Amino acid sequence: MRKLLTIKYDGTNYHGWQVQSNAITVQEVLQNAFEKMFGERYPVSGCSRTDSGVHANMFCCHFDTEKSIGNYNIAIGLNTYLPSDIAVINCADVDSEFHARYSCKGKEYIYKIYNSKIRDPFLTAFSYQYYKPLNIELMNRAAKHFLGKHDFGGFCSIKSDVEDTVREIKSIDIKKDGELVTFSVTGDGFLYNMVRIIVGTLIFVSEGKISPDDIEDIILSKDRNRAGKTVPPHGLYLNRIFY
Amino acid sequence: MRKLLTIKYDGTNYHGWQVQSNAITVQEVLQNAFEKMFGERYPVSGCSRTDSGVHANMFCCHFDTEKSIGNYNIAIGLNTYLPSDIAVINCADVDSEFHARYSCKGKEYIYKIYNSKIRDPFLTAFSYQYYKPLNIELMNRAAKHFLGKHDFGGFCSIKSDVEDTVREIKSIDIKKDGELVTFSVTGDGFLYNMVRIIVGTLIFVSEGKISPDDIEDIILSKDRNRAGKTVPPHGLYLNRIFY
Repeated sequence: MRKLLTIKYDGTNYHGWQVQSNAITVQEVLQNAFEKMFGERYPVSGCSRTDSGVHANMFCCHFDTEKSIGNYNIAIGLNTYLPSDIAVINCADVDSEFHARYSCKGKEYIYKIYNSKIRDPFLTAFSYQYYKPLNIELMNRAAKHFLGKHDFGGFCSIKSDVEDTVREIKSIDIKKDGELVTFSVTGDGFLYNMVRIIVGTLIFVSEGKISPDDIEDIILSKDRNRAGKTVPPHGLYLNRIFY
Repeated sequence: MRKLLTIKYDGTNYHGWQVQSNAITVQEVLQNAFEKMFGERYPVSGCSRTDSGVHANMFCCHFDTEKSIGNYNIAIGLNTYLPSDIAVINCADVDSEFHARYSCKGKEYIYKIYNSKIRDPFLTAFSYQYYKPLNIELMNRAAKHFLGKHDFGGFCSIKSDVEDTVREIKSIDIKKDGELVTFSVTGDGFLYNMVRIIVGTLIFVSEGKISPDDIEDIILSKDRNRAGKTVPPHGLYLNRIFY
């Protein structure tokens, strides 16, 4: 029986989702919990890789089991074997054709900036502190140019070797609440570091280094050097997965 | 010149405010930062002791200096020498008679409970996870009995040797927002563990172990054993200091 597991994690202490030979990852820790609970090591397939240090308010993965344990008990049981920075929030039956990654229709990422000269000790690990006042209206104007289907080859880590760099951005907006500025980006899929480079580019807009009307040209150039910096991982959250 | 410093800290890694010979405290780390910035070790007087693991959204302390550094530069400068879990949020001139502790007219503490069977990885260090549904209305009804001036001898750690255990509670209320339940308590002063025992007692009310109308009797008894448990420190925040 195939099951869909929804988890949430503080990514601070993990080298992303995917198992690596020399570093601790969320997938490995989750598989260890399965081994303790079910007595066997289940392969668990994730909806996405996430980068080192990136958080997830919602991350999905699937696994197969023949054990007849109720879904609620699977969720509660796994939580007792998981460290406090990872939580299983739901477990549900899915069709045997379902695949956490290939059935995914879209994702939402959020990026949090703590926009102040003075840090907030409670948000240090959970947002990027940036001290110059951000121009929200100007960034929202620039953000509109990212909407739609584009070749985002210039908004991708040069370390990536993905061939098809066309992606569709469905919504993007920036809100300010007190000192906290939240960027929300929804799309059918994202390239390696894409959201972090988009946010870095919007910061360049706020700083006056790029005009909102330059965005279209920068996208068309497919030149990584024309886009903004890659902002740090600890402000980024995988926020929703659409199936 | 006497200065009032307002700080904020994540207490997770500290054994409270006050310097101890064998454990790391906020006061010690702050004095280390002063030494790096001013070239000398300033005695810094705090508004309160806080227990090990307790957080502060607002904590005040005073110090004296003859150096002519602007208040804003003191705040920004100290932050560069402080670890990320402590932040100076303000520095202001005060009268030479002012004393962070003795000039204090009242304090507000808040206590956060994450009321869910499933933990939130982002709140593990910042709230107490309690899984039985809390009865907010019943707890608010019971809480009213704490208002006013009482001898809170029974709501105090037996480790305390304070002689005068009379304190006045000015306001107390409990609110729920999603899974997060926040207790706010304002008073002229608090005994050792007093807020944590009050919250533990209100949880007993929610569980039906104590009736709201028993509170008056329990206070009068001055018997620590009749009050509830001392809830863990990581849900507690010193929230406001009134001068």
